[in-house]
Parts: sequence; structure tokens; C-alpha cells
Amino acid sequence: MTERVRITYRLTPHPGQEIDILCRSIALEQTVEMAEDAIHSDRIRECIVGNCEVIEEVSGQPGCYQAVISYDAAVTGYTVPQFLNLLYGNISIKDNIRIVDVELPCDLLRRWRGPQFGISGVRAATGVHDRPLAATALKPMGLAPRELAAIAEEFARGGGDIVKDDHGLADQPFCRFRERVERCQEAVSRANQATGGTTLYFPNICAPFHEIEEHLDYVADLGVRGVLIAPFLLGLDTVRHVAQRYPLLIMAHPAFSGTHFHDRRHGIAPGVVLGTLFRLIGSDISIFPNAGGRFPFTQDDCLDIGRRLRAPLGELRPAMPAPAGGMDLERIPEMAAAYGNDAIFLIGGALLHDRRRIAADTAQFVVRIRRCSEDLGAGEPAPRRAGSR
Amino acid sequence: MTERVRITYRLTPHPGQEIDILCRSIALEQTVEMAEDAIHSDRIRECIVGNCEVIEEVSGQPGCYQAVISYDAAVTGYTVPQFLNLLYGNISIKDNIRIVDVELPCDLLRRWRGPQFGISGVRAATGVHDRPLAATALKPMGLAPRELAAIAEEFARGGGDIVKDDHGLADQPFCRFRERVERCQEAVSRANQATGGTTLYFPNICAPFHEIEEHLDYVADLGVRGVLIAPFLLGLDTVRHVAQRYPLLIMAHPAFSGTHFHDRRHGIAPGVVLGTLFRLIGSDISIFPNAGGRFPFTQDDCLDIGRRLRAPLGELRPAMPAPAGGMDLERIPEMAAAYGNDAIFLIGGALLHDRRRIAADTAQFVVRIRRCSEDLGAGEPAPRRAGSR
Repeated sequence: MTERVRITYRLTPHPGQEIDILCRSIALEQTVEMAEDAIHSDRIRECIVGNCEVIEEVSGQPGCYQAVISYDAAVTGYTVPQFLNLLYGNISIKDNIRIVDVELPCDLLRRWRGPQFGISGVRAATGVHDRPLAATALKPMGLAPRELAAIAEEFARGGGDIVKDDHGLADQPFCRFRERVERCQEAVSRANQATGGTTLYFPNICAPFHEIEEHLDYVADLGVRGVLIAPFLLGLDTVRHVAQRYPLLIMAHPAFSGTHFHDRRHGIAPGVVLGTLFRLIGSDISIFPNAGGRFPFTQDDCLDIGRRLRAPLGELRPAMPAPAGGMDLERIPEMAAAYGNDAIFLIGGALLHDRRRIAADTAQFVVRIRRCSEDLGAGEPAPRRAGSR
Repeated sequence: MTERVRITYRLTPHPGQEIDILCRSIALEQTVEMAEDAIHSDRIRECIVGNCEVIEEVSGQPGCYQAVISYDAAVTGYTVPQFLNLLYGNISIKDNIRIVDVELPCDLLRRWRGPQFGISGVRAATGVHDRPLAATALKPMGLAPRELAAIAEEFARGGGDIVKDDHGLADQPFCRFRERVERCQEAVSRANQATGGTTLYFPNICAPFHEIEEHLDYVADLGVRGVLIAPFLLGLDTVRHVAQRYPLLIMAHPAFSGTHFHDRRHGIAPGVVLGTLFRLIGSDISIFPNAGGRFPFTQDDCLDIGRRLRAPLGELRPAMPAPAGGMDLERIPEMAAAYGNDAIFLIGGALLHDRRRIAADTAQFVVRIRRCSEDLGAGEPAPRRAGSR
């Protein structure tokens, strides 16, 4: 028996397109890339080409099918890039093929390892064990390193948990990476010493290929505990590499991933990308645009992300959902009810509106989180509404 | 005067959404990520936030607008990952925003350099100066290295120009990367010695982050002249790195890029991704699914890719379009008419249908290309129908 990767597709065939033939064409396209009758080996036809295990019409959605195709895990070469290729390489260029689930054998999960720290690691690093975490982003782009450091310091003085670079802060002439990281890390340390707190600063790693490791070494040497990375900007396997080689918490950002989500008939479901995939490659925290903010994710999309980050998945550690994207303090009760205690609430712009009040507003942010968390019942597992599946 | 990156958007606002406000929200989202009134600095509002230069309704398409927003090139940090973030980071998660053009200042173009070899380099390496090139792919996945090498050898004996790994061939237990590359390179060299030909073999580089450079060194040491890479699987900046550091021709594959293309109202146009972007990061050759094959690209999409790969772009070398994806010998005249001489025709499955006839069919492939090329008029620039713009 080979170990199998099982991929679940939601398919909307074109008129006249037969569902069985469509499924077999996917199984061929993602492996041998040639017509059935051009394959001269039974072994290849049976062992390399995917095997359609289930095809059923989705109830209440005539013309829409759910199919499961399984593939020998060896086809992935046990690497992330070739796994992505198997998952959605060529068929991404087709249409009406949506990935809604993926199931990996233990062997693959063990090799990729997933989060190095996971929820308990994030909690240990921040010293916060009984409530959701309060996070913010340093912005706007265009501020000098010392100005960003001043914001970070105020946030830390207010008792916030994680302050990250805005994901547009790279290494720009008006704000150099090294100076920014050094000043922000220093500012947060200074505030922590004054308050006895444990606020963490996460710089954004958005470097060219040949500088990624230099940047990681630099931040690790400064005592930075975690980084922000956008897997779709740097390459998804880059994140796996960071998780396996650097003593850094990883907060993943969804930038450049969004074309998977805007059409319900094509792409990869938000929960699979920002939940399952981001966790597989080692994200300890996954940021996503919460429902009701500036982005069009639904509540079900978001709950599915939260569920997939934390549900049992081989021996992989659970990761923390970080709902974001236009949140403010008013949304805390709702986020607490939706995601429970093991989550990070990321409020950026709304917290930085009045720069003289950042420490006070951050303190208020934490108070409100604590209050909601107590309402949920300390020590009790938080109620979670069912996801979309 | 700052140097500007100019991005052209095709926008389809939701009912009630005002186009001016939508444009300004994009300019904010892609830079400062906060509301206008939270920005306290005029300098940031004027110099960092994008500047809407043009907003006009698309003629004949009521409710659809074309807008140009320019950004200070410094915002990109002059790196590919942050440029991608500026281009389509957060707005990828919105909907009804499509990128249809991008214009970069010379300064940026000079830093990224584009193709290391370009069309003239591909021609010099293959010794073919007066016609389109004939290429194929080694498949199906599941064959052993010696079987793939036998196919490569037959293709070379038939006088084909470039034989590449199928893009699903990675480093799999049933076909190891090193053994495959060594055997295929050896087989093609042996055939070249016998025929006096100059067929090239391009192995697929689909390795985890920490093995990419090892794999590149390995193939370069074997005398391999070029590689296949899927930028969306390995990270787009990885390709730029290869182009700047390795003496290897780069053939780019579109795998995993397709969610940009299936909705005409969202994503990045095929010509911009597979033409402009792939050339910018250094692809000498860009493979794309030709119209009328297994994939839903239109003729206009394909011509636009071909045009953007070869049109003047700063001092960047032009790159070669490689129409593919279900082509056969019957399509050669049409491809020749559409793309002219400076193109590579990639025929995979159809050429390998009968393995005993590969050399003969390849010879026929080249004869047909030569005939079409002569029909086009040797030395004359090939006629090209207008692209979609």
C-alpha cells in the first residue's frame, strides 16, 4: 500500500463536459500530462496517475460536483514546491476547479514538521496564557525608523503582545531594514524593562532570494523572537526553510494569495491556503482578513481558517489564527466569540489613529480582550461556531 | 522628480462604489494600509501613497474603468518581492481589480536586468538562427531516468532543438533528479556527437529552498546550458537570482500562476504575468498554454504574451515565447503565423505518442517548422497580428 495524498475538488463542469472524464483529465494533467492512450505502461496508469475515489453531486447545487482524487505521495517528491504543483500547478490555468480539502499522509507531515512553536510556543514567548493576544502593525509606510520605533515603544508600554512591521515595510531608501529592526527591537526592549512586560516585535522579512538568510541571521542576532513573512511573495517553501532552521516564530501574511479566493468555482479555498497550507509550511500564526472588514471573506471562510489552523493534523502543532484587515476595538467581543482564546487580534490603523494615545488605547485593547475572555469562561474551551464544512 | 512605477488597472466597481474613491483606496491599500485621515504627514500622503493619474470609462463597457496609478519606485525597495506586493499584494484579496499593464522606470529595469541571454542567446546556444525552435518535454512521469534519457536521445537524433523535463519531474523516489539529469545530458551529448547537432537538454529545477543552489551547481557542472523553472512554485525572485548568478538559460513555466487568469475582472492579465513579469525576472523563454489547446487562453492573450516578451523594454533583452499545452504538428503553420520566427514551438505528448518514431517525428517537426518559416519569408520580420491592447 502506498501512502496517498487525497485532494478534494469542487467541480462545475461546462455544459456537455462529463464529470467522470473531467476527473480523469485532472488526474492525468497533474501527473503525466498526456492523454490516457499515450501511456504505454500499466504501472504508470495505475500508480502515477491519480485515482478518482469519490465523485458525487453536491446536494442542492445541481451541476456542481465534489470529487476526491488520491495520488501516491511519492509524486510530491516529499517537497513543498512539487506538492504545490501536484495540488494546483497546471489546473490553476483551467477554470471551474476549486480545491476544498487536502489530506496528507503522516509521512509527509512528519517531513515538513509544520509550526516549530505553535500556539504553546507563542504563549510561552509572550507570557500570555489565558486570553487572546493583542497585536498591531507599524505604519504608515514612509515613517522613519525612529518614528516607527516610537510607536512600537508606546504599544509595548501599553501592554500589547505583538507589534509587527506593516507588510509593506521592506528595505526602502526612506526606511532601511536594519536600522528599523534595530531601533524597534531596542524600543520594545526598553519598554519591556520599564514595565516588566514581554511585548514582542516581529520585523517583516521581504528580501531578495540571496538576502533572505542574511536578514534572518541579522534579526535573530538582535534577539528578535519572530518574523512576519508573506509566503506568496517569498515562495511557500522559504517559510518551511525558516521554520526548520531559525529560532523564530513565524507570522504568515496573505499578500499576493488572493486570486485563489475571489471566485467560488476556482482557486483554493481560503481555509486550505491560509489554514492548512500555511500551517504545513510552518506558520505559527496566520493573518487573514476577517469577515466584515475591508476584504470580502465570509464568516464561514474565516472560521474554516481558524479551525484548520488548530484542528488535529498528524503530529503538527496547532497554529494561531490572527483575524485582521480593518478591525477595531468594537469588534473584539465578536472576534472572541468566533475564535476563542487561542487567537491573536490584530488591530492596526484603528489603534494608531491618535499617536499620543497609543499606550492608553493599547491598554484599553488588552482590557477589552481580557474582559471578553473572562466572559467566555476562563479555562473553558471557547465556543466556536461550525465552519463551512 | 521621483522615478515612478505606473500600474494600469481595469476596475469594475460594485454598485454604489464611486470610481474615484475606489482608485484612492487602492493607492492607500498598496502603500500605507490605513485610512486617509489617519495619515498625519503631507509628505507621506503625497509621496508614498500612489497618485491616481488617469481614470476613464472603458469605451463600450459601461461600468468598467481603466485607471493608472503611479507610485514612487522607492516603495518597491528595488526588489522583486516588494514590487509584487506593491503590484498586487493586498488587492489580490479584493475583487474586480485587474492589472492590465505595468510600466517601470529604467532604474528598476537596470537593477533586475531581465534575461541574461535573451533571444540571441537562445539562438547562439542552439545554433538555429533562421526559424522557430522545435522543443519537447520528457514524459510521462513514472518513467525511469534511463527511459527518459532514451526519449531525449531520440529527439536529439531527430534534430530537435530543446528537450526539457516535464515540469512534474522533480526529485522523486521513482526518478531521482541527479540520475535523470546525468543520463539525459549524456544521452543528448551522445546524439549530438553522432549527428553534429546542438540539441539542448533543460532539466526541471523544482527543489526545496535549501537545495535550489545545489541543484543549479550540479546541472551547470554537468555542462547543462539551461533549466526549466516554474516561478510561482519556487518564488519569482528565485528566478531573478538564477538569471544573475548562473550561466544557465531560463525557460519559465506557468504552473500555479493560473488563478490570475480565469476571471477577466480580477487578477493580473496573462501578458503581464507570463510576458512582462517573467521577462523582468530574467526568463529567456516563457512557456504558455496556446489558444486552442487544453487551456482556456484566448488568441489575444497569447499574442499579448508574445508581444510583451519581445517589445522594447528599457535595455532588457527580448525573450522567446513558447506556445504549448496540447499542440501538435498540424498547429505549426498557425503558430508560425502568430508568433513569427523568434519563438519556440513546444510539442510534448503528441510527439511522444509512438516511442519508436520519435526521431522520425522530430525530423518531421523540424522540416515543417522550416517550411513555414520559409513561407513567412526568411530574414523578414514575421507578420504579427495585433495583441489585445
